[in-house]
Amino acid sequence: MSSLAAPAIGQEVIHEVGQPRRSYGERSSFEKAGRYFNPGAYGGTGSARTPLQDLYGIITPSALFFERLHAGVPSIDPAQHQLLIDGLVETPLIFSMKDLERMPSVSRVHFIECAGNSGSEQAGEPGDTPQKSHGLVSCAEWTGVPLSTLLKDVGVKTKATWVYAEGADACRLARSIPLEKAMEDIIVAYGQNGEALRPEQGYPLRLVVPGWEGNINIKWLQRLTLIDQPAMTKDEAASYTDLLPNGKARQFTFVMEAKSVITRPAGGQVLDGRGFYEISGLAWSGRGRIQRVQVSVNGGRDWKEADLQKPILTKALTRFRFPWTWDGQETTIASRCQDDTGYWQPTRDELVAVRGLTAGPDGYNHYNGIKWWRVKRTGELTYA
Amino acid sequence: MSSLAAPAIGQEVIHEVGQPRRSYGERSSFEKAGRYFNPGAYGGTGSARTPLQDLYGIITPSALFFERLHAGVPSIDPAQHQLLIDGLVETPLIFSMKDLERMPSVSRVHFIECAGNSGSEQAGEPGDTPQKSHGLVSCAEWTGVPLSTLLKDVGVKTKATWVYAEGADACRLARSIPLEKAMEDIIVAYGQNGEALRPEQGYPLRLVVPGWEGNINIKWLQRLTLIDQPAMTKDEAASYTDLLPNGKARQFTFVMEAKSVITRPAGGQVLDGRGFYEISGLAWSGRGRIQRVQVSVNGGRDWKEADLQKPILTKALTRFRFPWTWDGQETTIASRCQDDTGYWQPTRDELVAVRGLTAGPDGYNHYNGIKWWRVKRTGELTYA
Repeated sequence: MSSLAAPAIGQEVIHEVGQPRRSYGERSSFEKAGRYFNPGAYGGTGSARTPLQDLYGIITPSALFFERLHAGVPSIDPAQHQLLIDGLVETPLIFSMKDLERMPSVSRVHFIECAGNSGSEQAGEPGDTPQKSHGLVSCAEWTGVPLSTLLKDVGVKTKATWVYAEGADACRLARSIPLEKAMEDIIVAYGQNGEALRPEQGYPLRLVVPGWEGNINIKWLQRLTLIDQPAMTKDEAASYTDLLPNGKARQFTFVMEAKSVITRPAGGQVLDGRGFYEISGLAWSGRGRIQRVQVSVNGGRDWKEADLQKPILTKALTRFRFPWTWDGQETTIASRCQDDTGYWQPTRDELVAVRGLTAGPDGYNHYNGIKWWRVKRTGELTYA
Repeated sequence: MSSLAAPAIGQEVIHEVGQPRRSYGERSSFEKAGRYFNPGAYGGTGSARTPLQDLYGIITPSALFFERLHAGVPSIDPAQHQLLIDGLVETPLIFSMKDLERMPSVSRVHFIECAGNSGSEQAGEPGDTPQKSHGLVSCAEWTGVPLSTLLKDVGVKTKATWVYAEGADACRLARSIPLEKAMEDIIVAYGQNGEALRPEQGYPLRLVVPGWEGNINIKWLQRLTLIDQPAMTKDEAASYTDLLPNGKARQFTFVMEAKSVITRPAGGQVLDGRGFYEISGLAWSGRGRIQRVQVSVNGGRDWKEADLQKPILTKALTRFRFPWTWDGQETTIASRCQDDTGYWQPTRDELVAVRGLTAGPDGYNHYNGIKWWRVKRTGELTYA
């Protein structure tokens, strides 16, 4: 900021009446933040990463919510869409979107994170921006019917222990979900941040499975079948598993453990000289609420408490903030978080000691190590 | 919902890989909800109402956030934009957007409501949809610098009692704000629902003045001047006042009092026969948190407690829900709310008894009476 002799400012003075009206608004043409598509994927597959470094607060704009696609984004007419619930139930039922919208609803803010988010960090190929390293997590206010309400309507037979959930996309992506979780907090969601789901997030209907890996939050949901053992679909038997050093793979590792990342200042950004900068970032846990976030600005010599944005919501992104005055010297900065189970986000070394470095069929999943950024004397930030 | 003999569903089966990727996503082409522009306004003026009947939860999508315009929407380059703070201060300062983004920030969810929202209800011309009657209120997660932080930086002189705030739009819309409020909870905001402010909400910088009438939440903010008495701008001396039966007008009636409205089912909608419907709507208060919402489904004979979406945030929209089984008979339905000061939303009769029916220069402001919807035997809903 600059001190003023005379109270006058240099910017252009507007004399003309501004833009015409838009029924459905758009962002300013000066704004360029966009999702980043991983290279090498073929049509309809791959992932699009959220530009975390450009975001504020805890809500991810729906236009920038991450995607992980397996057969593209289907175009579904909500007037034709139906949800079938069958299998080990007293009365199989079909629900139209109109049926669902009459039913008792809930709205809750939850993050969704791809199991593979930040997996390249485990591989020793650290992302050079928050978007590239951690951009497969986003957060929204979801609205829909509790899955438990629908299951009560169909009458679950006592033999049932799992729910098979299937999407309407061309690959019929499907996962098995333990009945206990289905009765606990899953939402059959049609709303995202106040309006209908976006196409990339499963329009017109998806599962929101709070705190569990993204892939199980089935998009374009068309079928739920009550079963007595997991269906062992491709995405739970092979993909989304964690290969261990002994050659065995962990399966059904649903929960995304506590993780945090500094999003500003961070890799890809440049500090404008020494002085005050607010350090800001995101923390989350699939087990519940974030309890503490600590920040180090000196390579881990000290860790100090960051301020947490209130209210702190369960299984939602939590924004943290930390005041920092940069002295112009090279250093590394990072955050680490603790959730309300008492669990602390581990270092990469701690994780690698347990999990090894053998990638599974789809790379590394469920990595949640501490992420460091290097601040150079020039003010540039890179991965550390 | 329909019972099934065989578990098969009739909707079209998708075999083709879906849509290509979009860096900045759009909603489904099946979704048509839009803002409603009041007729008769000339270019750059008037208002655009949020389609409350189409919304879920408490977040208003930025693309559907209401507008009340006085000179259109200016196009401002954030790299050129500056905020001047001068007047009764020790050190006048100019802040660039980059300066502001380095400073300590906060994110909070708040509603903004036009003072004139639902004024036509006072006039005896009830809106026939929630959008037309109450669509000049919206809610977002705002991010920015506390105004108190900026005022500490410039050093407010003891003589200062008000802050004059001015926008950069062609009409330089300006208001005076008591210094006490400026030090309490006002945000100099650059973020809305996770990304930059939308142009219609003041891009790149606006005031968010929690709980106070929309007009004072100055958009395209370019100047704050510390003064020792209100500036008596057009929008506080004449417009946005409340003309009383005795010919005097109330000025500086900043706070938007507790109000609620059922948004579904509501005017313009049609029930699909008797049976279960969730009644849902919104409640808010400029004084703090919503404490209770009650719903009547029989013209006011009984009022029963509605369920409130958690967490209940201060000076934010609160979603309420109420289970209802329609018996097919004609009736009227409404909601009423109480905030945490103990104040109950009044009836129209109670308000008119105090305020009369003489419109001010810009119609009726600060109306917050109970809103009734009529349910016809046909299932159609209209104003009551």
